[in-house]
Amino acid sequence: MNQWIIRSQEIQPLSQEWIKKAHERLDSQTRPQGSLGYLEDVIAKLVAIQQKTRPQLDKKRILIFAGDHGIEREEVSLYPREVTRAMVMNFLTGGATVSALAKQINADVKIIDAGVDGDFNRHEGLTQAKIGRGTRNFKLEPAMTVEELHQALELGWTMVEQAKKDQIDILVLGEMGIGNTTSASAIIAACLNVQPALVTGRGTGLNQEGLKHKIEVIEEAILRHKTQLDSPLNILRCLGGYEIAAMTGAILACGHYSLPVVVDGVVVAAAALCAYELNPVISDYMFVGHESEERAHRFVLEKFNQQPLLRLSMRLGEASGAALAVNILDAGVRIYNEVATFEEAQVANKKESARLSQ
Amino acid sequence: MNQWIIRSQEIQPLSQEWIKKAHERLDSQTRPQGSLGYLEDVIAKLVAIQQKTRPQLDKKRILIFAGDHGIEREEVSLYPREVTRAMVMNFLTGGATVSALAKQINADVKIIDAGVDGDFNRHEGLTQAKIGRGTRNFKLEPAMTVEELHQALELGWTMVEQAKKDQIDILVLGEMGIGNTTSASAIIAACLNVQPALVTGRGTGLNQEGLKHKIEVIEEAILRHKTQLDSPLNILRCLGGYEIAAMTGAILACGHYSLPVVVDGVVVAAAALCAYELNPVISDYMFVGHESEERAHRFVLEKFNQQPLLRLSMRLGEASGAALAVNILDAGVRIYNEVATFEEAQVANKKESARLSQ
Repeated sequence: MNQWIIRSQEIQPLSQEWIKKAHERLDSQTRPQGSLGYLEDVIAKLVAIQQKTRPQLDKKRILIFAGDHGIEREEVSLYPREVTRAMVMNFLTGGATVSALAKQINADVKIIDAGVDGDFNRHEGLTQAKIGRGTRNFKLEPAMTVEELHQALELGWTMVEQAKKDQIDILVLGEMGIGNTTSASAIIAACLNVQPALVTGRGTGLNQEGLKHKIEVIEEAILRHKTQLDSPLNILRCLGGYEIAAMTGAILACGHYSLPVVVDGVVVAAAALCAYELNPVISDYMFVGHESEERAHRFVLEKFNQQPLLRLSMRLGEASGAALAVNILDAGVRIYNEVATFEEAQVANKKESARLSQ
Repeated sequence: MNQWIIRSQEIQPLSQEWIKKAHERLDSQTRPQGSLGYLEDVIAKLVAIQQKTRPQLDKKRILIFAGDHGIEREEVSLYPREVTRAMVMNFLTGGATVSALAKQINADVKIIDAGVDGDFNRHEGLTQAKIGRGTRNFKLEPAMTVEELHQALELGWTMVEQAKKDQIDILVLGEMGIGNTTSASAIIAACLNVQPALVTGRGTGLNQEGLKHKIEVIEEAILRHKTQLDSPLNILRCLGGYEIAAMTGAILACGHYSLPVVVDGVVVAAAALCAYELNPVISDYMFVGHESEERAHRFVLEKFNQQPLLRLSMRLGEASGAALAVNILDAGVRIYNEVATFEEAQVANKKESARLSQ
């Protein structure tokens, strides 16, 4: 697994020169300085990732990694694992929530079967790369082998490599997998070394009893693997999912290829957290689409020291919050590229105003 | 002014039946129930305002009311009043921040000169309806006369009436007027009966000393007009601006004509607060685009019991935050109209899952 440590260490922080250049342009536009607030930081970050005088978001791609989870057998979700496959079909036929959002932001959608327990026919939008038919039940044994983990990370990396070749300007990352908030909460609890009860939520809508059971399952799992949870990669291996590990690989690749990536809710956050633990610089390439209703998400965002673009109490997954947030980035790019400067518009700026009023 | 009290009293609350119908459809779509969080309430509200089985936001219009303020003479802003006219020109030539956002959301933009202290040539996008060349300095005397207030309210109402005739699906409300955050803070302090210091912010970027001075000016003004600040309309007359009163009229008209309206930052909020004090039901027709960095805004949103769609620490005005938020509403409409139901997609929903696992 050393290759992943090396790959992550090689990721470079953003150029401060480009950040400065971006803020200079923003300050020259016909607005009071700083009046777009956090949006200005977001725009500057995008400019610095793309290193373009005029940033662009013409070609967008949504990657949805799907996988099943052995832990689903512990009744931690309201839905049976069959729903993972059914929802993948729904993505492919364009009937899902993210399908509507993809049309709005004009993004193509790639679904990656990283380990769904079900078969698919060939479909243009589907990458068939099943690592297994669901992970092992991590309450009883590690979710995957070292080899499987490597395969999953590589799968994510490859999808980003392909996006780079396809000249994609921005990636949007999401997932589908019944049981995967249980995996995400376990990963977050292990990475941040906090009580599972603090970072476990209702997922698709568990009641109080269901939530209690879910917490107990996670506590038991963490206890079982305790001695092995000594690195982000081992945490992924023991408690992760194929789709989650693939997203970790994808996020690392976004840093490597300098591609902006919008991350979705708590499950993507768990994948991102593993990447972050390998090299915190990865945060430079990520935009947090929204803050999920799942309580673990806030812990991760605090760790990243990142603000979300949206706070709408969503908890759907399937890249929905991230795709929705792309609208804000689109707006930012338009503003950066199109708004007139004080000079162009012959509007008195603050300094000239001071002169005018002397 | 009785006519305005009657008009506002006639506004009807939203149909609970339509709200229910909307939630039923949302619940039938291929997502865990409630998983779009606050967005679901927003969609349902839009459906209930439009009373359409399939809501639509095809025709959008941004109304920007502009006016100058006598209070600007008290040096409460970093910018001189000439900037109001210059920014209107900037809107008309498409060089402003809101111009870029209007293109993104595909909205037409109407600028209404409610009282700019400067002249304009004829321009397609400009409605010339100057009530005066800036209001009076409300530190010394009421900002406007009863007749002027009536004219301003009527101006806003008429613009919405025209939008209704033009079959506009949604309005976005914003403003431009150097000095108008001073007016907005004064209105909010008077309406909510709170200390000006609590609801006064830095506007375009005042320093600590400038902020202190601005607060003192507002305190003095409120003290001067104390006995007259006994109704929302009198508060508007004494402390308002032509563009602010016009927006109050516009918002009331949105209630009357059942047109959804997205309100921008703190200055629009001051106008909306006056409408709300006339009849709180008006809140049913408003979407709060964003929460401004100006501290007064939070007080008003609490009063409205409304959540903003965005929280990006923006403080620009000119309808920018509201226009940006329209992206979220567009997404909501797409989701509502396009996402497959469990039945259509043959995805097992929660109930069926329960059956499946028996």
